[in-house]
Amino acid sequence: VNPSFVQAGRIDLTLEGSRAVLDAAVAAADAIGTPMCIAVTDAAGHLLAFYRMDGARTSNIGLALTKAVSASTRRRATADEFRPDEAQVIRKSLAMGTDRMTAMPGGIPIVVEGQVIGAIGVSNGHGEEDIAVARAGIAALTGPER
Amino acid sequence: VNPSFVQAGRIDLTLEGSRAVLDAAVAAADAIGTPMCIAVTDAAGHLLAFYRMDGARTSNIGLALTKAVSASTRRRATADEFRPDEAQVIRKSLAMGTDRMTAMPGGIPIVVEGQVIGAIGVSNGHGEEDIAVARAGIAALTGPER
Amino acid sequence: VNPSFVQAGRIDLTLEGSRAVLDAAVAAADAIGTPMCIAVTDAAGHLLAFYRMDGARTSNIGLALTKAVSASTRRRATADEFRPDEAQVIRKSLAMGTDRMTAMPGGIPIVVEGQVIGAIGVSNGHGEEDIAVARAGIAALTGPER
Amino acid sequence: VNPSFVQAGRIDLTLEGSRAVLDAAVAAADAIGTPMCIAVTDAAGHLLAFYRMDGARTSNIGLALTKAVSASTRRRATADEFRPDEAQVIRKSLAMGTDRMTAMPGGIPIVVEGQVIGAIGVSNGHGEEDIAVARAGIAALTGPER
Repeated sequence: VNPSFVQAGRIDLTLEGSRAVLDAAVAAADAIGTPMCIAVTDAAGHLLAFYRMDGARTSNIGLALTKAVSASTRRRATADEFRPDEAQVIRKSLAMGTDRMTAMPGGIPIVVEGQVIGAIGVSNGHGEEDIAVARAGIAALTGPER
Repeated sequence: VNPSFVQAGRIDLTLEGSRAVLDAAVAAADAIGTPMCIAVTDAAGHLLAFYRMDGARTSNIGLALTKAVSASTRRRATADEFRPDEAQVIRKSLAMGTDRMTAMPGGIPIVVEGQVIGAIGVSNGHGEEDIAVARAGIAALTGPER
Repeated sequence: VNPSFVQAGRIDLTLEGSRAVLDAAVAAADAIGTPMCIAVTDAAGHLLAFYRMDGARTSNIGLALTKAVSASTRRRATADEFRPDEAQVIRKSLAMGTDRMTAMPGGIPIVVEGQVIGAIGVSNGHGEEDIAVARAGIAALTGPER
Repeated sequence: VNPSFVQAGRIDLTLEGSRAVLDAAVAAADAIGTPMCIAVTDAAGHLLAFYRMDGARTSNIGLALTKAVSASTRRRATADEFRPDEAQVIRKSLAMGTDRMTAMPGGIPIVVEGQVIGAIGVSNGHGEEDIAVARAGIAALTGPER
């Protein structure tokens, strides 16, 4: 193959890695007493693993997935780029969009060796809780986030 | 509350139970060497937990969920009610429906004390493989299936 | 990072490679006199590049994409696994499914070093024409297909 | 045919013209160092050609197409008719709508002899970058835009 036709060196997240992220996120959610829906996606936004903790609302299954997909495919934490007042208005309308993009906080990319290899999306708590649980999940894989 | 207005005694599947099902299914899939997408839903068909094993195709994420939803909401294993020749023709076309019903084998209800408390859906192998892995998952919870 | 948490060595298809595939497919379509819609997707099924040749029907834009997505995410040429009589019945109903899976011929995975790095989907001709054009496209990248 | 029953003189954009637009847009995107998703649609909003440059996020595939469709079918550049403060709030929420209309900048109609013959949609950079790349693409066809 002509070398300019392909790019080698991509890193994939495994199921074992995904479960390490989920387990750490569940522990963090237990610690604050808020049951969560937690999704882990690959770099392309396809689901790798998912947990709905006992007591988490079924309405948040899709939101957790949307946050993970958004963080994976946009390579950027959800809510990072919006000013608070904007986010208030548009986050809900966006969350259900067909392309699964959202400005609701709680979706964070998983970065290894400079590559976005996937993302975690957390939903069922307040925004800061969702973010804290997402960060705790990622820390199990890559150490504490910036 | 008027006792006739409610029905007590519903049994819910927990995340811990869902993970026991997933772990047993993963072990069975490893044993036959076929990586699977595996979904566990509650009695209402809402996702509880999901694993995509390394090497399973992304096309089967939705199929595993569809099988679990179908088995949960119809309270019947997928493919059980169709004659083989019919099933051949319609199974795939049905799997794509918006209501997530399918005749493709690999979705089995989880029954405890006579109640359907959820279902497992398995996809990425041949039909018999998907069924075997689904049964192995359920056996971790309820013992060997009939 | 724990080595079991990630898998290194994935290969990505570039835009330059995608264009080489499209150009070769267009040349093959011109040679048989059938204008085509031609889509190239990455391994996850996300669009990389697309051409609609002059005279190709707009109804086939989505079909070309569906074929490429199906071949990418199922890692298998569309129509390969179906018997002709089955395919006749289900191919059209499947082609429009929300998960973009199809049994219509003309979607073929692009394989480099044993990895599915993407796929081509071709639509607007008869099945054999679509397949021939798809193969000609891939041959520009990897040499003649098996 | 009764001459009043039809309207002659429609101009259609060809694949060759679409590729000239894409190539010029890619060159402009390379010059500013921002990889882009670039879509070219016909006057009806149907996709003619598409490139995703290496490094552009998959989340922007749909946005590029939405911008091109919006500019084609509304015959007006995206973001042109909104005051900046409004645009900030609604641009993203609109982009996800099922009818593919958006106020996000980067969609521009292609006008030849007074007819809108199609549009270009560009996404993955800041608004001004998307617009600059879109204009550079169109200039290859029609000369510098007003």
